[in-house]
Amino acid sequence: MDVSKAAVFIGPQKPFEIQEFPVPEVGPGAVLVKMQMAAVCGSDVHKWHDPKSKGPIIMGHENVGLVAQIGRGIAEDAIGQQLKEGDRIVFRAAPCGRCYDCTVGLSCHVTPHYGMLPADQAPYLTGGFSEYLYLEPHPWVLKIPDEMSTERALMAVIGNHTVLLGIEKIDGIQLSDTVVVQGAGPIGMGALVQTKVMGAKKVIVIGGPSNRLKLAREIGADEVVDMAEYPTPEARVERVKELTRGIGPDVVVECSGANTAVQEGLEMVRKGGKYLVIGQATDYGQQPINPSLITLKAVRMEGAMASTAPFGYIVRSVEAMNSVVPFPVEKLITHKYPLAGINEAIKVHESYEAMIPVIMPNA
Amino acid sequence: MDVSKAAVFIGPQKPFEIQEFPVPEVGPGAVLVKMQMAAVCGSDVHKWHDPKSKGPIIMGHENVGLVAQIGRGIAEDAIGQQLKEGDRIVFRAAPCGRCYDCTVGLSCHVTPHYGMLPADQAPYLTGGFSEYLYLEPHPWVLKIPDEMSTERALMAVIGNHTVLLGIEKIDGIQLSDTVVVQGAGPIGMGALVQTKVMGAKKVIVIGGPSNRLKLAREIGADEVVDMAEYPTPEARVERVKELTRGIGPDVVVECSGANTAVQEGLEMVRKGGKYLVIGQATDYGQQPINPSLITLKAVRMEGAMASTAPFGYIVRSVEAMNSVVPFPVEKLITHKYPLAGINEAIKVHESYEAMIPVIMPNA
Amino acid sequence: MDVSKAAVFIGPQKPFEIQEFPVPEVGPGAVLVKMQMAAVCGSDVHKWHDPKSKGPIIMGHENVGLVAQIGRGIAEDAIGQQLKEGDRIVFRAAPCGRCYDCTVGLSCHVTPHYGMLPADQAPYLTGGFSEYLYLEPHPWVLKIPDEMSTERALMAVIGNHTVLLGIEKIDGIQLSDTVVVQGAGPIGMGALVQTKVMGAKKVIVIGGPSNRLKLAREIGADEVVDMAEYPTPEARVERVKELTRGIGPDVVVECSGANTAVQEGLEMVRKGGKYLVIGQATDYGQQPINPSLITLKAVRMEGAMASTAPFGYIVRSVEAMNSVVPFPVEKLITHKYPLAGINEAIKVHESYEAMIPVIMPNA
Amino acid sequence: MDVSKAAVFIGPQKPFEIQEFPVPEVGPGAVLVKMQMAAVCGSDVHKWHDPKSKGPIIMGHENVGLVAQIGRGIAEDAIGQQLKEGDRIVFRAAPCGRCYDCTVGLSCHVTPHYGMLPADQAPYLTGGFSEYLYLEPHPWVLKIPDEMSTERALMAVIGNHTVLLGIEKIDGIQLSDTVVVQGAGPIGMGALVQTKVMGAKKVIVIGGPSNRLKLAREIGADEVVDMAEYPTPEARVERVKELTRGIGPDVVVECSGANTAVQEGLEMVRKGGKYLVIGQATDYGQQPINPSLITLKAVRMEGAMASTAPFGYIVRSVEAMNSVVPFPVEKLITHKYPLAGINEAIKVHESYEAMIPVIMPNA
Repeated sequence: MDVSKAAVFIGPQKPFEIQEFPVPEVGPGAVLVKMQMAAVCGSDVHKWHDPKSKGPIIMGHENVGLVAQIGRGIAEDAIGQQLKEGDRIVFRAAPCGRCYDCTVGLSCHVTPHYGMLPADQAPYLTGGFSEYLYLEPHPWVLKIPDEMSTERALMAVIGNHTVLLGIEKIDGIQLSDTVVVQGAGPIGMGALVQTKVMGAKKVIVIGGPSNRLKLAREIGADEVVDMAEYPTPEARVERVKELTRGIGPDVVVECSGANTAVQEGLEMVRKGGKYLVIGQATDYGQQPINPSLITLKAVRMEGAMASTAPFGYIVRSVEAMNSVVPFPVEKLITHKYPLAGINEAIKVHESYEAMIPVIMPNA
Repeated sequence: MDVSKAAVFIGPQKPFEIQEFPVPEVGPGAVLVKMQMAAVCGSDVHKWHDPKSKGPIIMGHENVGLVAQIGRGIAEDAIGQQLKEGDRIVFRAAPCGRCYDCTVGLSCHVTPHYGMLPADQAPYLTGGFSEYLYLEPHPWVLKIPDEMSTERALMAVIGNHTVLLGIEKIDGIQLSDTVVVQGAGPIGMGALVQTKVMGAKKVIVIGGPSNRLKLAREIGADEVVDMAEYPTPEARVERVKELTRGIGPDVVVECSGANTAVQEGLEMVRKGGKYLVIGQATDYGQQPINPSLITLKAVRMEGAMASTAPFGYIVRSVEAMNSVVPFPVEKLITHKYPLAGINEAIKVHESYEAMIPVIMPNA
Repeated sequence: MDVSKAAVFIGPQKPFEIQEFPVPEVGPGAVLVKMQMAAVCGSDVHKWHDPKSKGPIIMGHENVGLVAQIGRGIAEDAIGQQLKEGDRIVFRAAPCGRCYDCTVGLSCHVTPHYGMLPADQAPYLTGGFSEYLYLEPHPWVLKIPDEMSTERALMAVIGNHTVLLGIEKIDGIQLSDTVVVQGAGPIGMGALVQTKVMGAKKVIVIGGPSNRLKLAREIGADEVVDMAEYPTPEARVERVKELTRGIGPDVVVECSGANTAVQEGLEMVRKGGKYLVIGQATDYGQQPINPSLITLKAVRMEGAMASTAPFGYIVRSVEAMNSVVPFPVEKLITHKYPLAGINEAIKVHESYEAMIPVIMPNA
Repeated sequence: MDVSKAAVFIGPQKPFEIQEFPVPEVGPGAVLVKMQMAAVCGSDVHKWHDPKSKGPIIMGHENVGLVAQIGRGIAEDAIGQQLKEGDRIVFRAAPCGRCYDCTVGLSCHVTPHYGMLPADQAPYLTGGFSEYLYLEPHPWVLKIPDEMSTERALMAVIGNHTVLLGIEKIDGIQLSDTVVVQGAGPIGMGALVQTKVMGAKKVIVIGGPSNRLKLAREIGADEVVDMAEYPTPEARVERVKELTRGIGPDVVVECSGANTAVQEGLEMVRKGGKYLVIGQATDYGQQPINPSLITLKAVRMEGAMASTAPFGYIVRSVEAMNSVVPFPVEKLITHKYPLAGINEAIKVHESYEAMIPVIMPNA
């Protein structure tokens, strides 16, 4: 493994290129990962369109790989399990522990985020759409249980761990909560699965198209509200009220990123309810929102982002996918491509044909 | 229904007597309940033995009944459902809303606790071991969904709602938590069921005898630790460590009431873990406990009692039994008796032959 | 005391009238209150303008009075202190304890809200702008310590208890938090005082006019941002950033009710900060708000309303005014009127000439 | 500065020796600290007595020093302030960010704890009882504001930051809480100060001798209970009940480390109260404790240790000492010694003559 092929983003709207990079020496504390599966994320697609984006970048930030080589001084993973070559892992750069964000308990911004770094200097191999990925010394690493499929392991670090972080911020699902999930994409599917296994009585997924809602039903949705059938906010709010004894859901989770979603969610949620806002990660500017709903309904709202530390929630998410979640979540990975399929993967993501397309760089 | 038969506690260790009482007029706001099922609770057995107890009492504080007659001015149950004669309900006296306990959010001590009151004056019919039970004006009432068995409804107000209150006090089960339940009685079974449906990865039940542990496995226990096989605290602590990767469980729930249980639980729980203490409701005096475990492990401990308001947790517990809990919890009701079987019911409770014996006063 | 004079709202924009009402017999559990001081609240002024409002109403919902007569069966106040004629008290109708709102821990809507009821039938005397006020049987009552001024007691039930409820919803002020209070009215002053005595390092009050900001400084504000000096949202956000090392405040409390306030607060608050929204109690419809700030900053938002139960926060607020708050909060009561001064009191409230005008019905 | 003198622990009960060590080269990311003030902690005294302790150790883990030299690559402190030679700082080794403890949010055990390491190999200078202390690359560093005394800065990292962590674990002090602090040593004084500035209505300190209680009164205690005057647990519990309207305190903070303290605290705390256990950091084995108090009083207990990450609470503690705490906490530093005074410092700590003795290695 002297060289590694990678799919490289070279500029907005340009086809990705397959390029070769030298595989670096594995120094003390570093880890070389042989990539197994990397998800194409909505944020990758967004960046590919964004005229402000600059290449070259090896994207791919939701990854499962094998330990190809370990540097001296790494013996264990994050929960104390022995680590050796061949182990399947998920990973992050460790937080620095000394910056402002680390100090106040937010996500470290000093540490590198794999899949989002420029690939124009050594060690180059910084993203998952690549045969190999190089982890700088002393990364955070978690071994995947042998009995678990790579698909489930990947699911744990896509929608599910982000949602879990958010659910912990709203102090968990209370037993028998009624939940509305806005959005039927990968994050919405994570919200559906997590709230179901944490004790929700009824989870209602709002979204589309119908192939996604069909998948939602297969992995546990009690009700779906199809945007095609209920095309207006008013119609959707009314439908949700009908499904919740006129009171509104205890919890709403926004996973759609749509402009009008937050106003709609505030109208749905019951008095004294909770509203978790995960989906509004792209800034589309100001939207019409009625702030008196927050006061008059005494609503609790929480924002949550995937990147926020600590990493305990990744451990929990992986363990849940292995031992707690009974649904066939593997089905959410609808399209698999080799490295060269990256441009096709972007296309099926954009068209909503896929739920989650993945790249399997060594397949 | 001019008279109602009831099984009356007349003094410590004396057989219960079947007596007849006049059924009162149903005044404005009051409700007459035709009892369907009342559980014999460990505290009833305890009170029967306690030399300080004074009769007459109509015991039975875990009850499901039918609305036989409603006084003027009650139209809805606690969640706004229309209430009419024939509806199946669970109930409590409403908190007074103006005493110290109500003010600080504890259980009201001004309001009567049905099943614990002297039965020597009108309206007499204050407990569940009776054909009829009279609810003083403006009680808290919750209608049971038609599709739900009476057994499941009763289970909701036995172990499960108490444990739910406690779990809310420890900020819920976090996804993939490992849980130890100390005690394989009704409260322990509630803790097992609730923690499983709220996202626990592995629930380990410690207790006996083997018939109870068999039931525990049927309703979701991942592992059991039989007191007969592991008779010493040291052996049990070691066994639990083995089952939890040497780290100890994230959460321990004490439901046994045993003298040595709290020290044992503190030894088991992981550093930074949580310890919910529900079982120590009887005062057996001081026990040898090492307080440095609390500091050195940075443990969170919480005590919880069944009676503590508010009643939202009863609603959640009933809804969970109807829609969330997949296990055959009906099996936990192992013995059913008519009113006249009360003395036998006490006996099978004491001998651990029964998990939960119930009285069916109108069967 | 056969009759009681009261200032009566008879219709939108019409002068209040002084009318006489019969003083009712004090039945079992009821309390007759001789009013000492009742605040004119912004919501009273709002209702006086609102074309949808219907008279007659005896307004006045923030009240301190003396026990004039107690019915049989009331011996103690909410914290167990003996209650007798002549005691100074604050009060509420007790929650019913059995409705949906009580069940889920929200404010009871079955129970009457004194100062907001029609005064067209017995017992008529339902608001604080009256010589006497009649508390229906079994109210929630709290005795005011003898050593405490009536002004401080009243302050405890104006801005302070509402804010305290909100602060508890955001899990309290953390030691050394930097706080921005939006709005320099009575609620804003409550937020200022409460956050200071709970450990805030720096409290910045945004508002006007300058007489209000001068008062704010006297009762503890570390910095003020005068709307006259910083007339645009951009200027105010920049000023707050300057005052918070460029990071933004840990906590923002919205107490202004202004249309643009919530967007402004979201721009100010630091990443991972908290935003308590108390002021948006009037529905002015949708406003331009950028929802991506919630997600990208991982903000926690909470709405809070004065009316939400339980009442423990009133006890805490009164005790704080008596023993914890070192500031001369009495100064916030800037204007005092007899019953006949009600129309003048409304006027000085509207003009911002007053901070808090009060009616002293028996002065 | 080729060599640094240090006071070295060479074995249990042996006088400390003043030895010289080479000052190391300051590598990239490292920091050389010129020590200003280091506290003698009870745990140092304990270790000095403990027959299992092994020398050589340069003790001193509560430290304030000056930046003598900074390695390449460190530009800012933990809250983004520029860092340069001559700055006064407090510091810690940064957590590793990838071990089990870091992952689940506990204190990192991979990273070194200055003041507790063997001093038998380079870089030797690992504790505060030394002219210089060497911080390994990429430490966590916080600059002390210029206007703040070194004494107050030191206080921030002695009792106060530990207690703050604990108070955050119990969800803060609620406004007007009544608090009992068990123990009148440095940790108890921290608990007194923190709870006062966070809104407690009344703080009662239990302990002795009288010189310590006199200090407690000077820094804010509302009441003291002298062990000499109330020598039995029964007498102290009764006295505390008297001082808390017969109800017991809302919060008890155990800071004494005494064998019987936890049982005593459980007897004192009110029903539904909170009990923070910080003092039980030395394991004296099992003590007689009544576990039914936990259940029957529905008590919340929390253990807390100084070492537990994250470090945000150190920032808050320093800021509070600078801007929030009005009390003359400097007085708690009762004895100051040069390096050579270390043996005397240990002596006055043991005899309770001192509250906090400090070493000033460069004075």
